[in-house]
Amino acid sequence: MSNSEQTYEPELTGLLVVDPYNDFLSEGGKLYQLARSTLEAHNVIDHMRQVLAAARAGGVQVFIAPHHRWRESDPYSHWKTMPPVQASAAQGHVFADGTWGGRFHPDFEPRSSEVVAQEHWLSSGFANTDLDLQLKKHGIRKVIVIGMRANTCIESTVRFAAELGYEVTVVKDAIGSFGAAEMDASLQFNLPEYASTIAATNEIAAKLSA
Amino acid sequence: MSNSEQTYEPELTGLLVVDPYNDFLSEGGKLYQLARSTLEAHNVIDHMRQVLAAARAGGVQVFIAPHHRWRESDPYSHWKTMPPVQASAAQGHVFADGTWGGRFHPDFEPRSSEVVAQEHWLSSGFANTDLDLQLKKHGIRKVIVIGMRANTCIESTVRFAAELGYEVTVVKDAIGSFGAAEMDASLQFNLPEYASTIAATNEIAAKLSA
Amino acid sequence: MSNSEQTYEPELTGLLVVDPYNDFLSEGGKLYQLARSTLEAHNVIDHMRQVLAAARAGGVQVFIAPHHRWRESDPYSHWKTMPPVQASAAQGHVFADGTWGGRFHPDFEPRSSEVVAQEHWLSSGFANTDLDLQLKKHGIRKVIVIGMRANTCIESTVRFAAELGYEVTVVKDAIGSFGAAEMDASLQFNLPEYASTIAATNEIAAKLSA
Amino acid sequence: MSNSEQTYEPELTGLLVVDPYNDFLSEGGKLYQLARSTLEAHNVIDHMRQVLAAARAGGVQVFIAPHHRWRESDPYSHWKTMPPVQASAAQGHVFADGTWGGRFHPDFEPRSSEVVAQEHWLSSGFANTDLDLQLKKHGIRKVIVIGMRANTCIESTVRFAAELGYEVTVVKDAIGSFGAAEMDASLQFNLPEYASTIAATNEIAAKLSA
Repeated sequence: MSNSEQTYEPELTGLLVVDPYNDFLSEGGKLYQLARSTLEAHNVIDHMRQVLAAARAGGVQVFIAPHHRWRESDPYSHWKTMPPVQASAAQGHVFADGTWGGRFHPDFEPRSSEVVAQEHWLSSGFANTDLDLQLKKHGIRKVIVIGMRANTCIESTVRFAAELGYEVTVVKDAIGSFGAAEMDASLQFNLPEYASTIAATNEIAAKLSA
Repeated sequence: MSNSEQTYEPELTGLLVVDPYNDFLSEGGKLYQLARSTLEAHNVIDHMRQVLAAARAGGVQVFIAPHHRWRESDPYSHWKTMPPVQASAAQGHVFADGTWGGRFHPDFEPRSSEVVAQEHWLSSGFANTDLDLQLKKHGIRKVIVIGMRANTCIESTVRFAAELGYEVTVVKDAIGSFGAAEMDASLQFNLPEYASTIAATNEIAAKLSA
Repeated sequence: MSNSEQTYEPELTGLLVVDPYNDFLSEGGKLYQLARSTLEAHNVIDHMRQVLAAARAGGVQVFIAPHHRWRESDPYSHWKTMPPVQASAAQGHVFADGTWGGRFHPDFEPRSSEVVAQEHWLSSGFANTDLDLQLKKHGIRKVIVIGMRANTCIESTVRFAAELGYEVTVVKDAIGSFGAAEMDASLQFNLPEYASTIAATNEIAAKLSA
Repeated sequence: MSNSEQTYEPELTGLLVVDPYNDFLSEGGKLYQLARSTLEAHNVIDHMRQVLAAARAGGVQVFIAPHHRWRESDPYSHWKTMPPVQASAAQGHVFADGTWGGRFHPDFEPRSSEVVAQEHWLSSGFANTDLDLQLKKHGIRKVIVIGMRANTCIESTVRFAAELGYEVTVVKDAIGSFGAAEMDASLQFNLPEYASTIAATNEIAAKLSA
């Protein structure tokens, strides 16, 4: 399927906004300095806004797939094992619940009709959450993915979505990462294996608003 | 395996407390009148207390598997379909978030080291939640199940646990239902197919505290 | 939703035929004597044929959800635990691979365009198999369930289907069990909680062929 | 955790051999020319042999996670969507069932006590298969991953393993890919986020045989 053939019927399509936290996307966030270069290079936040606006305008249901917020009560000390990226987030109290960093960037606050899936513990928005259920209950078969960060949560969410049977689109200039090299590697080597369409914001927004 | 051969090594065993809400277990709860006869006939709440105390005394990790709490923001009006038991809970605003009915019965409030899994939307504590992950992260392979209600959430949680590879014990006088007939049918026909052990509180408590 | 309002759009509906093995359904099968009374009382095999024929006539995709076939190479001796119903099937070499008992009843052999999901180890056609994926890949949101046996594989498959977001119909006279009491209990207490529609063959067949 | 602290208790550890097909690993296989450079550069097949031998010597249970074998009867023409990597494998009749290319490389044929999980349709050995169940039934909490190919099936299997709660080790010179760049990117950027240990064959083999 070429990009031009890709369609986004509103009743079959969902927009997945992954981890739109202040800690990632806002000046002063705990991970913002790491993300800044890719966010600025691709004008990511503005592109995320455009895709979100187009989805809303086109009647496409919006879903937020939020990372686990760090909490004082987290059970980590009882866990037998943790992958490095999780241990690091836990140690840094990233996306701390009840703090500004753990709130969504104001431009990506969900509207009342939009779905916030359960928090995912590691990287995939689908793993150990209700995201697959929510998509099915809404009749969604195609997902458009934007947010953070390209080679971890975005890529894991895309890989899981493809395994679960969804048709996946990645908006390549509406995702960011902690460095150009790792984002380029995801876009060059991995996402094209699992995403039916990888396209830029203007192309996707045009289709969604059509 | 006979009941007497069943062992509960603390490092391998978890206690699952299913849906211990005031709406089910406390006088004045929305579903208490429906549950009352089985709760009283088997002295269920006292048995739940005894099993919980024995688990804590024996160093067995406690997990709460809580039903979805009704919220004003629930997405039901956008869902394509709902099973009858879910439609009914939604309509009745059962376990309403922020209300007394949606809080845990005071005797089953978790301690800080105990795990509260994500809320399950329908009946199985495992479906679309992090319960399986939490059990694995704690190294648990055997689960002891108590709570409400025998033929819906208890039975679905037991069926899922068995499908997922856990060794399951049901404490037959620490579960309740909306009527003796449906509870008896679960205990007679279905739970024995999936639970390796079905036993009474005194037997389980003795093993846990041993 | 009342039964009369239930619709079965061919592009959204799948027929699930659960465990249609000779060992269950054919004279001489290992479990046939156990199943015989309910099969005969409700004319189950004939009803299964009618539902299957109606699904095919109506363009509804057919999926078989087959139980694990016993094999010499089964890993049971290395497993830490097995639920009773699984231990029993293993001990009896039920649905033995390569034998007549482990083949589908001739009237329920799939056509080349029909999907045979991976074998399920325990009871739910969805657990540890590709059934959910196959349904999604075909765009299915509604499932009609027939086959064996009412309170184990049928009920577990129905419970999982509902948890996974499908709209479920059970054809009450196209399922069998090992006794009237356990089948009646499933139909009276449990299936109505998870199935949106429970109806007889003539009603379902009429809708499918419409 | 540093690599030197990583332990592999035989009763808790499983070796996952991913997609050890002739089509990948043997001269004349359909994908061998694509894989050849990385296989040779890192002496991958010999390293896979060494890890497997060490696992067997050390009493570590072996699991094969095999990719879907192409079959004439595959349902692809009825599927609504397919990710690119799957469409490509389908078109190329890769790992064709009943052919030499779809058989395991002779050095990685499982012994009778070793587990062959259900075939995975896309990339993760866990998705829509019984791999998680098999690991749990054997009491496994730690997995060591070898095989093909680094940035698709290996990385997806590792990401899923981590999401599901397993402690993951990748043997970096016992995996191959279709090019150094994509393998390096996986090893540099992605696998270190999810694998607790990434080490060479000699280090892992020494620990397994210890």
